[in-house]
Amino acid sequence: MYKRLMESYDPANDKNGVSGERIAFRLHALSQIGLGDRYSCNRVSFSKEEQQAKELVMHWMKEAGLDVRQDGVNNVIGRLKGATSETTIMSGSHLDSVPKGGQFDGPLGVISALEVAQAWKDEGFVPAKSYEVIVFTDEEGARFQSGLSGSQAMVGEWNLEKKKRLRDQEGKTFEDVLQENGLSFQTLADAKRDFSEVETFVEVHIEQGKRLEKAGLPVGVVEGIAGPSWLEVIFAGEAGHAGNTPMNDRSDALVAASQFISAVESLPPDYSHSAVATVGQLSVSPNGVNVIPGEVRLTVDIRDIHKKHRNDLRDRIRNVAKKIAERRAIDVSVDEIMSEDPVPVTEALQQKAAQAVKAVTGNPALHLPSGAGHDAMIIGRKTDIAMLFTRSQDGISHNPAEWSSLNDCVVTVHALKTLVEDLIKG
Amino acid sequence: MYKRLMESYDPANDKNGVSGERIAFRLHALSQIGLGDRYSCNRVSFSKEEQQAKELVMHWMKEAGLDVRQDGVNNVIGRLKGATSETTIMSGSHLDSVPKGGQFDGPLGVISALEVAQAWKDEGFVPAKSYEVIVFTDEEGARFQSGLSGSQAMVGEWNLEKKKRLRDQEGKTFEDVLQENGLSFQTLADAKRDFSEVETFVEVHIEQGKRLEKAGLPVGVVEGIAGPSWLEVIFAGEAGHAGNTPMNDRSDALVAASQFISAVESLPPDYSHSAVATVGQLSVSPNGVNVIPGEVRLTVDIRDIHKKHRNDLRDRIRNVAKKIAERRAIDVSVDEIMSEDPVPVTEALQQKAAQAVKAVTGNPALHLPSGAGHDAMIIGRKTDIAMLFTRSQDGISHNPAEWSSLNDCVVTVHALKTLVEDLIKG
Repeated sequence: MYKRLMESYDPANDKNGVSGERIAFRLHALSQIGLGDRYSCNRVSFSKEEQQAKELVMHWMKEAGLDVRQDGVNNVIGRLKGATSETTIMSGSHLDSVPKGGQFDGPLGVISALEVAQAWKDEGFVPAKSYEVIVFTDEEGARFQSGLSGSQAMVGEWNLEKKKRLRDQEGKTFEDVLQENGLSFQTLADAKRDFSEVETFVEVHIEQGKRLEKAGLPVGVVEGIAGPSWLEVIFAGEAGHAGNTPMNDRSDALVAASQFISAVESLPPDYSHSAVATVGQLSVSPNGVNVIPGEVRLTVDIRDIHKKHRNDLRDRIRNVAKKIAERRAIDVSVDEIMSEDPVPVTEALQQKAAQAVKAVTGNPALHLPSGAGHDAMIIGRKTDIAMLFTRSQDGISHNPAEWSSLNDCVVTVHALKTLVEDLIKG
Repeated sequence: MYKRLMESYDPANDKNGVSGERIAFRLHALSQIGLGDRYSCNRVSFSKEEQQAKELVMHWMKEAGLDVRQDGVNNVIGRLKGATSETTIMSGSHLDSVPKGGQFDGPLGVISALEVAQAWKDEGFVPAKSYEVIVFTDEEGARFQSGLSGSQAMVGEWNLEKKKRLRDQEGKTFEDVLQENGLSFQTLADAKRDFSEVETFVEVHIEQGKRLEKAGLPVGVVEGIAGPSWLEVIFAGEAGHAGNTPMNDRSDALVAASQFISAVESLPPDYSHSAVATVGQLSVSPNGVNVIPGEVRLTVDIRDIHKKHRNDLRDRIRNVAKKIAERRAIDVSVDEIMSEDPVPVTEALQQKAAQAVKAVTGNPALHLPSGAGHDAMIIGRKTDIAMLFTRSQDGISHNPAEWSSLNDCVVTVHALKTLVEDLIKG
């Protein structure tokens, strides 16, 4: 990985204390922990690999002059005390991965936040406010089909009953796994932190989409994190023999579902440029070649960075399902099975981030939504957040083919450093 | 069953030698062989139950004065020699069932054909031409996912290689099962019969649909047996994250499939009033709530009683799939995985059948397509065929709730007798 990162690197990007070679080395060193087939990353949460990666980062944090600790959910917090103020700017991301994941989703945000501190140390700069580099535990949630545990514990918003029900693939409970890591539900509760002195959290992450690639830009400014609403829709018609039932005497659940799916695709632009809606899961019953479908179950994933638009779109989709079912004289049920609030980035912070990007790249910044959730979404409940996205090759993520060039990573670090230096002034 | 059949029976339907009570008794007696839960019929093909039912029918055939034999596939043939001619009119159906099937699908056609011969005997009538009552073996094909074995062997059109590959749920080969029944591929070949003296085959069957029920008619005239063409259609787009991929940058295979399914429903009326097309089976990949569908596989079952219309509709559906894929810039493949030719009923035979129905019911006959296949479809390759459908309660079939009233059954027998007497005149 080191070699591949370095071979197309432009050394002119090394400046202001930021080192491309160091970033490549660190990404490479982390990639060796949990390395699998096709250079995949296999560091599921609460594993010894996740902790080993954290320990490597803690070692680098100390080199960068940070005070390092792990909290009650094993989040890593590396703190640089400000010259004049306890008011804190935080930056970071996570080190856990999905099984057979990529090497950038998470690590890039941690290494970027760390590089800012290291560059300051190398240049002898001490900021006015305090700075913290954070490694959140269990962002992906691949192990327990859950996730965001570290950031949830830090803001003190998590559901004990729900966590108690979680089981991993080996049948271990979440509590078992906490114990294996020297933790407990009590330490999780203790991880809740006072956010009164935290002014802003900034997260660097790969885009996991193609917007920046299409625009030809190395880095972009996130305008908000889209909160998903998940609907489960069940169309119930009547099964029947595909040969013996005339076309005008059918209650075909799949034809109704099809009209619904076509409609869902057309609706998001009516609400916002960033809204999306996706029917991703669908099953047909009885599912026989010569049987008219009696029931179709499907899910709709609806997202936008604006809560009102997201909810309006959700309500419209619900109505469309009902209208189609009514028109076709079949039954439908629509249930919201999950809902997370979107987290907007304030105009002021977007503007500062855009200024930083423009200062580094010379180009006006592209503002883009984050369709996926991130720790910043959770931290955003307690303090202002900003995010910078790094261009992803072919938009591929959660896959060993995930890639961002070292030039793009380093340009993003410069933008992060410029933004943090703007925020951290006294 | 006997009691339920008799309790709403109108004795005025007993005439011309036809006995409702005898038909009820015989349907009941057959129902006791392979009787299962909820009064279901469980007589899979080549089982001891199928043979036991045939033996009971052979006993009744002899009572009706027929010469009885089983051919090389164990079809039962009961023959009444004509007064003046070897030219033969045949009628019959099958006695095997799907697992947990109903008590009318098959037995009604056999009992009806037999009742005609019994009525003649009771009335001392001997027809000019010969008459045969047939029980075909293995019509349903539930055991080997195949079927129509008896009629295929009789016309001598079956695929040895395909039959050799068949396995039942216990792993027995078709050949094993033939041997258990004292048969072999050689006896199957020997079952091929000379059709030069067979003039017409008439089959009585329950409708397995709701057309007659909706029209308020006890019996109807089949205008043809729809041959199915099965297409497998695969839309291949590109999977992606449901949050990170803007609506205008997707290759969603399910949206394409949905537009296709909606179109398929609208096309059959452009081709014929009897044409139908059904997307019955569909699977989505990867099928994740938050993943844009990358691939959708689905089947289309296309039927009509007119081969040209069926094929034109199939070609149109194929083109629609290609056009939708082209418009949405995704890939599609369309393969015909099965095709059986439709078998029309000649205008002349439909007219004779309609005259018989009108003579019996006093009402003009409803002509309706048979969407499902029947032994008559196979026999139709060698000689003219006609079919009469008996009203099915709620159109339910292949289910213990399958039901036709005894009045409807007896009215159908009168229509069959009238039709056969018309055909069998010297």
